[in-house]
Amino acid sequence: MSLLTVGSVAFDAIETPFGKTDKIVGGSGSYISLAASYFAKKVNMVAVVGEDFPQESIQMFQQHGINTDGLQIKKGEKSFFWSGRYHNDLNARDTLVTELNVLANFDPVIPEAYQDCQYLILGNLTPSVQKTVITRLNKRPKLIVMDTMNFWMTETFLGELKEVLTMVDVLSINDEEARMLSGEYSLVKAARKIMGMGPKNLIIKKGEHGALLFGDTQIFFAPALPLEEVFDPTGAGDTFAGGFIGHLASTNDISFENMKRAVIYGSAMASFCVEKFGVERLASISAEDLEERVQEFVNLVQFEIEYA
Amino acid sequence: MSLLTVGSVAFDAIETPFGKTDKIVGGSGSYISLAASYFAKKVNMVAVVGEDFPQESIQMFQQHGINTDGLQIKKGEKSFFWSGRYHNDLNARDTLVTELNVLANFDPVIPEAYQDCQYLILGNLTPSVQKTVITRLNKRPKLIVMDTMNFWMTETFLGELKEVLTMVDVLSINDEEARMLSGEYSLVKAARKIMGMGPKNLIIKKGEHGALLFGDTQIFFAPALPLEEVFDPTGAGDTFAGGFIGHLASTNDISFENMKRAVIYGSAMASFCVEKFGVERLASISAEDLEERVQEFVNLVQFEIEYA
Repeated sequence: MSLLTVGSVAFDAIETPFGKTDKIVGGSGSYISLAASYFAKKVNMVAVVGEDFPQESIQMFQQHGINTDGLQIKKGEKSFFWSGRYHNDLNARDTLVTELNVLANFDPVIPEAYQDCQYLILGNLTPSVQKTVITRLNKRPKLIVMDTMNFWMTETFLGELKEVLTMVDVLSINDEEARMLSGEYSLVKAARKIMGMGPKNLIIKKGEHGALLFGDTQIFFAPALPLEEVFDPTGAGDTFAGGFIGHLASTNDISFENMKRAVIYGSAMASFCVEKFGVERLASISAEDLEERVQEFVNLVQFEIEYA
Repeated sequence: MSLLTVGSVAFDAIETPFGKTDKIVGGSGSYISLAASYFAKKVNMVAVVGEDFPQESIQMFQQHGINTDGLQIKKGEKSFFWSGRYHNDLNARDTLVTELNVLANFDPVIPEAYQDCQYLILGNLTPSVQKTVITRLNKRPKLIVMDTMNFWMTETFLGELKEVLTMVDVLSINDEEARMLSGEYSLVKAARKIMGMGPKNLIIKKGEHGALLFGDTQIFFAPALPLEEVFDPTGAGDTFAGGFIGHLASTNDISFENMKRAVIYGSAMASFCVEKFGVERLASISAEDLEERVQEFVNLVQFEIEYA
């Protein structure tokens, strides 16, 4: 089934304890689309960049089967730019620079050929832009997955955010954000409150501690792979979400059982993402790499209990 | 197979966001022995208390099939006492009072009838006392599991601790302690270093984020159950270790496959422990409670991947 991805396509400059990059390609839309492209056959991207965005990176998206007809290129303008420095333990980071540039007035235009999409993922963006995308689709997709962040959970944007929450099926946020949005410390209670705001399913990402998928009455947990080194965590959450919806779109099955598998595929994709800076590792994953990585998840958590 | 447990049997006074206790029964030896008693038929306890320790609590141990012949009662002396206050998120706590009392000069005497034990668990105690226990056994047990804490990883005690590490099979510590002991942030690297110090298996407890079991080449992960409320985390790690070795002793199987099951049973026992203050919940778990809880773990992590 065809998938529509909306998110930022941008430049990042990243500093981790292991090194430092100049401006490299990043953004939620880049990570999501690339991760999804390993599963879904038709990935349609909607995003905006400036004139400074490299043609080779657009070609790289296309080589992954990503349709970039919906990628607006603004003449005379600059792409969104974020720069950040991670702390030594990689669990926290400081934002050094945020330049909205083209993202300040992003008007998400949906090409006519994208209108048949049955799966939609809204990467982290202003909630009003996320809403606009939904309202511009002639037919509601079968599944809408949304990612967002703490920035939109403050007073100025909370109303808008809550409005979009009533329009989506799956919300993907991290544990801090779940606590902030719900006012509950217990993630089980937080999940119940947030699902009361609209989404039928909630994914709570816990970074190196894995991810929880909540359904009506069910909970599923997937660990993160214990890695020797996490090189650069940037984009791991987006990559997870891209793998998640990519698997759902490619199988066209939105049952809880299949969402569990989608969480595993998303986790596997995220485990690749953190091995190198930016989207580098995501640009070249073989089918064997992926199968091997998924098998590591199976080995990591499988056990057999015999009852007396 | 008979199991020997060594640890503190003591009084705790606990403050959590949910309430406050007077002196209640606690200590690593209490949690370990009670948790193990649900699995192993013969649990032999070695510990020391003062004259102030209540007879009813000793009877409670006995009612769980725990042999208390090795529980020394020091006339005219007082039991070990610890008091602490948990922070609002329960992930950190401040020690308010530590009174060593009888523990200051604990001489762990092994009753002759305990000498046939094939499974030994050393709860958190001075490393020199842990070592004394091992040297006083006529025959080395089939499996020695050891728990310890950051307090013994500082300069004064590190030498002693490392000596005991060469004598045990399984070490159980939390993630912070693993990082402290190894000097490595990555838990995979930390595990390799620590297993180089002696233990063939390492358990890294991550509290609400679950537990990792490391073997020679294998890694197993068990999540903690996502709970609505954690009432009192005191003793959860000891309870985990007690359930872990209790299962191994009762099945007399120390393969990695069976250790995985033991981690699940340990996690299930820990999930009961945190539901009430102290050992209260541990004192009355039915076989149905346990089976139901283990099934929740199965539901939480099981998934099926079909390969294309």
